[in-house]
Amino acid sequence: MARLYPVIMSGGSGTRLWPLSKKSHPKQYHPLVTDQSMLAETIERIRQGAAGYDIAPPIIICGATHRPQVEHVLTQCDVQHATLILEPVGRNTAPVAITASLFVADQDPEGIILLLPADHHVTDRRAFQQAIQNALPIAEKGFLTTFGIRPDRPETGYGYIKASQPLGTGAYHVEAFVEKPDLETAKKYLVEGSYSWNAGIFMFQAATLLEEAQTHAKDIYNASLTAFRASEKKDYVLPLDTELFSKIPSDSIDYALMERTEKAAMVGPVDMGWNDIGSWQAVRDLSPETVGDVMAIDCKNSHIRSDGPFVAAIGVEDVVIVATKDSVLVVKADQAQEVKKIVEHLQKKAREDKL
Amino acid sequence: MARLYPVIMSGGSGTRLWPLSKKSHPKQYHPLVTDQSMLAETIERIRQGAAGYDIAPPIIICGATHRPQVEHVLTQCDVQHATLILEPVGRNTAPVAITASLFVADQDPEGIILLLPADHHVTDRRAFQQAIQNALPIAEKGFLTTFGIRPDRPETGYGYIKASQPLGTGAYHVEAFVEKPDLETAKKYLVEGSYSWNAGIFMFQAATLLEEAQTHAKDIYNASLTAFRASEKKDYVLPLDTELFSKIPSDSIDYALMERTEKAAMVGPVDMGWNDIGSWQAVRDLSPETVGDVMAIDCKNSHIRSDGPFVAAIGVEDVVIVATKDSVLVVKADQAQEVKKIVEHLQKKAREDKL
Repeated sequence: MARLYPVIMSGGSGTRLWPLSKKSHPKQYHPLVTDQSMLAETIERIRQGAAGYDIAPPIIICGATHRPQVEHVLTQCDVQHATLILEPVGRNTAPVAITASLFVADQDPEGIILLLPADHHVTDRRAFQQAIQNALPIAEKGFLTTFGIRPDRPETGYGYIKASQPLGTGAYHVEAFVEKPDLETAKKYLVEGSYSWNAGIFMFQAATLLEEAQTHAKDIYNASLTAFRASEKKDYVLPLDTELFSKIPSDSIDYALMERTEKAAMVGPVDMGWNDIGSWQAVRDLSPETVGDVMAIDCKNSHIRSDGPFVAAIGVEDVVIVATKDSVLVVKADQAQEVKKIVEHLQKKAREDKL
Repeated sequence: MARLYPVIMSGGSGTRLWPLSKKSHPKQYHPLVTDQSMLAETIERIRQGAAGYDIAPPIIICGATHRPQVEHVLTQCDVQHATLILEPVGRNTAPVAITASLFVADQDPEGIILLLPADHHVTDRRAFQQAIQNALPIAEKGFLTTFGIRPDRPETGYGYIKASQPLGTGAYHVEAFVEKPDLETAKKYLVEGSYSWNAGIFMFQAATLLEEAQTHAKDIYNASLTAFRASEKKDYVLPLDTELFSKIPSDSIDYALMERTEKAAMVGPVDMGWNDIGSWQAVRDLSPETVGDVMAIDCKNSHIRSDGPFVAAIGVEDVVIVATKDSVLVVKADQAQEVKKIVEHLQKKAREDKL
């Protein structure tokens, strides 16, 4: 029976959800749309195995400074035998995929990896399970499999996957990975039907990924291998060598591998109520009107949240209000992407305490 | 030459400007539409005398617990020889007017009092000076003179004064004091032209007011006299006797005296850019877009203020945002009067720390 190694990518600082998400406490460690943190949700989602495979304890890759937060979640979720891989710096997802594959291949040459971000929300866990079951035989055949999400709107914020020939149950060869489209193009994709959102969730044999990396991303592979070999696991924690890991070229698994390999496959289009919680608008869409010490009078389509001061809101519509101990954000929901301007401003002014 | 004794009523807790205005630090002690506190603005406004009269140092009546705030403002404004009268509890404006008159009549039987609230904003100080000059001869003739403000909108939040026959330069007999009207009625008043807003600013001889009080408000007069006689001034501070002052019936100068006396007069209608800053909407109308550690992007007709956390606002329109160290208010400007519901809620929940 195949053994599936879930590798949860818990790096990233989630500036789009400022001021709740901060460098010191990024969004994946917050309860955002449920009462569990995003990381805990992710752990629960992948927990049980199913027919045809079983699930190894999770391997979590996070920034070295966030080790306490991850350990807190592992305790909360009562996870046994997890592994922590600590990144001294962020180098994007390609080095993460390679490092995870080196780690898994070392202990299980046939091991299959489910690589997924810690900060996504999925409403329908059964659909997610089904997608895993569809992906497994494809990954075992030696494909780098990505999860395609069925679009329900002409979203311009995601990359798309264009599927070509069927490859099995709910699985396709990939014709092309497509950059974030403009609105016109996104509308065409939605009508056309063979385009799925690229959710950044992957399944592959560790051995296959390493082969493809040697072929298509030799520099990243070599630098990752050097860093991995120089790093020593103590107990359940593998802190990657600071100097050597920092030398790895930064690139995404999409650019470095998926767009180059001949072995790209897609499962899907998956309908699992997927949301990458990429903005406060998304949080608003999925959350109750108020969270925390909040009073709302005559508010509509709004989301009002505090983990600090008492917040009172009166008569606002389509607004997100987020209060923390030291910062307050009030943003019209459809302008939530502008939050990055606030973060840039704070960076420029060297106001690190607010970031 | 007449001597004018300004008596500044600095009681009241200004709940309509929660969360900036709190019991412990009401609105008159805050800079709201300028960089001076409202009390400091009031002191500056009445400071210089003019032809025909001179101005005595101010007499300030405030809640006993706010003595430090008043002293702070007096130091800031470099005021010499002020008097502080401390109220142990609030008993509305009639006992204040009587107590102030007793105090002034004791030292100057011909003294004239200018009685005014500490929490009004006046844009045109020259017009205010002119109104004082118009009121003086009327007050000296023995009238209880009120300042009528020329309405520029059908305001339903104020009482009105209906003027009758002329009584001198810019002065009239009063035909009637009128309660807060409905919108329909307010519109008629605006067109009709002989109605002014009742601003709660008065000028009268101390002796006249005491005579009228004995005639029309005997209970309040007697109780006020008893409390006053039992209170002892120390240095420049007169703390009113707690037990006896608490026994005075609570009533406004308007109800207890102005509506009953035959000696009511009005100066005006005065055009002095008067505003009683009765809501956050009024503050918004008179203030810059941002005050304090605030960043606003693409906001319109809004007022965003912090004396605590960093506040970022994006894309909101007609909204007032007020952040303090422990509370945040976000309110659509035209619903600013609903702030009272927040205060009521906090009172009901016994959350005194937020009030």
